[in-house]
Amino acid sequence: MSWQLTAADLPDLARGATLLGTGGGGDPYIGSKLVEQVLGTGSITVLDPSDLADDAFVIPTAQMGAPTVMIEKLPAGTEPTLALRTLESHLGRQADATMPIECGGVNSMIPFLVAAETGLPVVDADGMGRAFPELSMETFAVYGVHGSPLALAGERGETVVIDTGDDDKQLEWLARAVTIRLGGVGHIAEYAMSGADVRRTAVPRTISMALALGRAIRVAREQKRSPFTAIAAALAPTGYSHVADLFEGKIVDVERRTTEGFARGRVRIAPTGDGPDLVIGFQNENLTAHRGDELLAIVPDLICVLDHESAEPITTERLRYGQRVRVLGISTPDLMRTPGALATFGPVAFGLTEEFLPVEKGASAPVPATD
Amino acid sequence: MSWQLTAADLPDLARGATLLGTGGGGDPYIGSKLVEQVLGTGSITVLDPSDLADDAFVIPTAQMGAPTVMIEKLPAGTEPTLALRTLESHLGRQADATMPIECGGVNSMIPFLVAAETGLPVVDADGMGRAFPELSMETFAVYGVHGSPLALAGERGETVVIDTGDDDKQLEWLARAVTIRLGGVGHIAEYAMSGADVRRTAVPRTISMALALGRAIRVAREQKRSPFTAIAAALAPTGYSHVADLFEGKIVDVERRTTEGFARGRVRIAPTGDGPDLVIGFQNENLTAHRGDELLAIVPDLICVLDHESAEPITTERLRYGQRVRVLGISTPDLMRTPGALATFGPVAFGLTEEFLPVEKGASAPVPATD
Repeated sequence: MSWQLTAADLPDLARGATLLGTGGGGDPYIGSKLVEQVLGTGSITVLDPSDLADDAFVIPTAQMGAPTVMIEKLPAGTEPTLALRTLESHLGRQADATMPIECGGVNSMIPFLVAAETGLPVVDADGMGRAFPELSMETFAVYGVHGSPLALAGERGETVVIDTGDDDKQLEWLARAVTIRLGGVGHIAEYAMSGADVRRTAVPRTISMALALGRAIRVAREQKRSPFTAIAAALAPTGYSHVADLFEGKIVDVERRTTEGFARGRVRIAPTGDGPDLVIGFQNENLTAHRGDELLAIVPDLICVLDHESAEPITTERLRYGQRVRVLGISTPDLMRTPGALATFGPVAFGLTEEFLPVEKGASAPVPATD
Repeated sequence: MSWQLTAADLPDLARGATLLGTGGGGDPYIGSKLVEQVLGTGSITVLDPSDLADDAFVIPTAQMGAPTVMIEKLPAGTEPTLALRTLESHLGRQADATMPIECGGVNSMIPFLVAAETGLPVVDADGMGRAFPELSMETFAVYGVHGSPLALAGERGETVVIDTGDDDKQLEWLARAVTIRLGGVGHIAEYAMSGADVRRTAVPRTISMALALGRAIRVAREQKRSPFTAIAAALAPTGYSHVADLFEGKIVDVERRTTEGFARGRVRIAPTGDGPDLVIGFQNENLTAHRGDELLAIVPDLICVLDHESAEPITTERLRYGQRVRVLGISTPDLMRTPGALATFGPVAFGLTEEFLPVEKGASAPVPATD
């Protein structure tokens, strides 16, 4: 069912999107402020995928870059719409709606910024079902919709249109180079597709899920209930129904460097009691969680680092020595775990040697969905 | 006057273009072979700028990249025409002619490759009057025609269209990044302009000058006359009329590295007799010639390293220890020495601290134009 999003929804959406960012995706808070400013007292139509006409023309919009740069370098706010207009002009067709390419992090917000500026609706779906670091890591691509042509806009009004045919890795490679030279952040429109292709290739209803997650955490805090239980309850009816309690402890070391346009590194967490440390490796997003030598969760399942009390999700660029955290592993929908999907954004796509291990088959107990 | 170029002209054109490449511009030999292959027994119309209609639409074509990579990585041959077609499609207008953006090195040949493939004429003019390492270093830009939009094509059929408005340095910055990620070489179409703008902003008749230079050197060799005198004679009636005899000696050291998409370095030449060494600094092209502490010639004037007997021009990537060479300095036309021109491609544009010194005001004697 389609629904209306107002500025009052933005803080909850930002919180939920940070959780789905699994440490990356860029901080959605800045994006939410930009949306709020443009939206004012208005509202944006969020289109359920089932309400899209088969021949509707959807152009997803997003920000690309290293999260470590994104929090330092604010967009002017007009870049994503410029990217959309550039792609429309290149294709000779106007968009009927925009959509996120990832539902985690700042990219949950960018399509709403475009929608607030243009009056277009936003489709309640995305192509990652979380956040991933590379443009090619899309369910769209797994199921045959490719990113080219891509339009990229910079803060000084620069536009770049890239077409690499079916080669989405080459598209990522070239667009990343341009983004680095734009100072580390660019805004893009890509994966233009029909309404029928959205239903066939996108992860559905991830915007409403992010909003529900953020709201559940806030309401639980207000009602002095466990926000972790609230997260499990909010996810129970979705394709992300298994929430594993991976670890609780204190951050004792963070290695982080920004290289080749990515934030790469790892965080070490010492347990509250005895036992081995948890080590999480990341490339913008959290990729692996090992307790000693034991793999607990791995990409594309979600590995989420949260404040141990408030359940506020913590992005990789905000990890600090001494933070007390709880780490959750969250299962992903079936369309994100097919052989094609795992080849595109599973362990092998990140050069990891570990096999994919569904988090529900790991050693961790589930978080209960009721108090 | 317009004229016809045939495959028989290519070796002379390549030789002359290598001289005008002033050490850079990429080796035109490989380009000439590609043109020869496509042209066969046909011919290409070389349009004198005075024969262009005011409203004719001219799209220059070129190769960009580091010469050190260009000689290792052969183009498929279809990329420059793909770049032209991509820009035509973006602008919604078909070209009436193509043109070089630089008359030195491989970029003397690329427009002929496009012409041989498409049947378009080539305008006898260019935007550098020699070779320069960066796309923004164009008389076109100095006199108000900008490079955007630029279309870039890669060997796997990738296309990129970049628009940075009037900011040609940003255009160079972004296009260079894409070129590096394409493996070090890309093919481009840019600086689309009218026939009237060609007459106003281009350095005229540099293709016919390159051909005349190459032919003069060959004929002098065949007739056992001095090819150096022949060079001076060929240039005497052009805007490049002063040929200074900078140095003669043996190469004793070459430093060369390929960084950020450029070949940078310097070459040291010991004199045949006594006296200080000559040191030439280069960024793709030769930029400065110092004898000891004394500046003899500096960009944008031409600094050309030639074999001491045959006068075969030697590009920076082919400089070797032990080569016996003669170094010429060649004056450039007035439109390449205006304050705007010097700001765009004079010493300051390369971060050099030396003031521009017209080579005819330097300490070197002229090469005589008659035996």
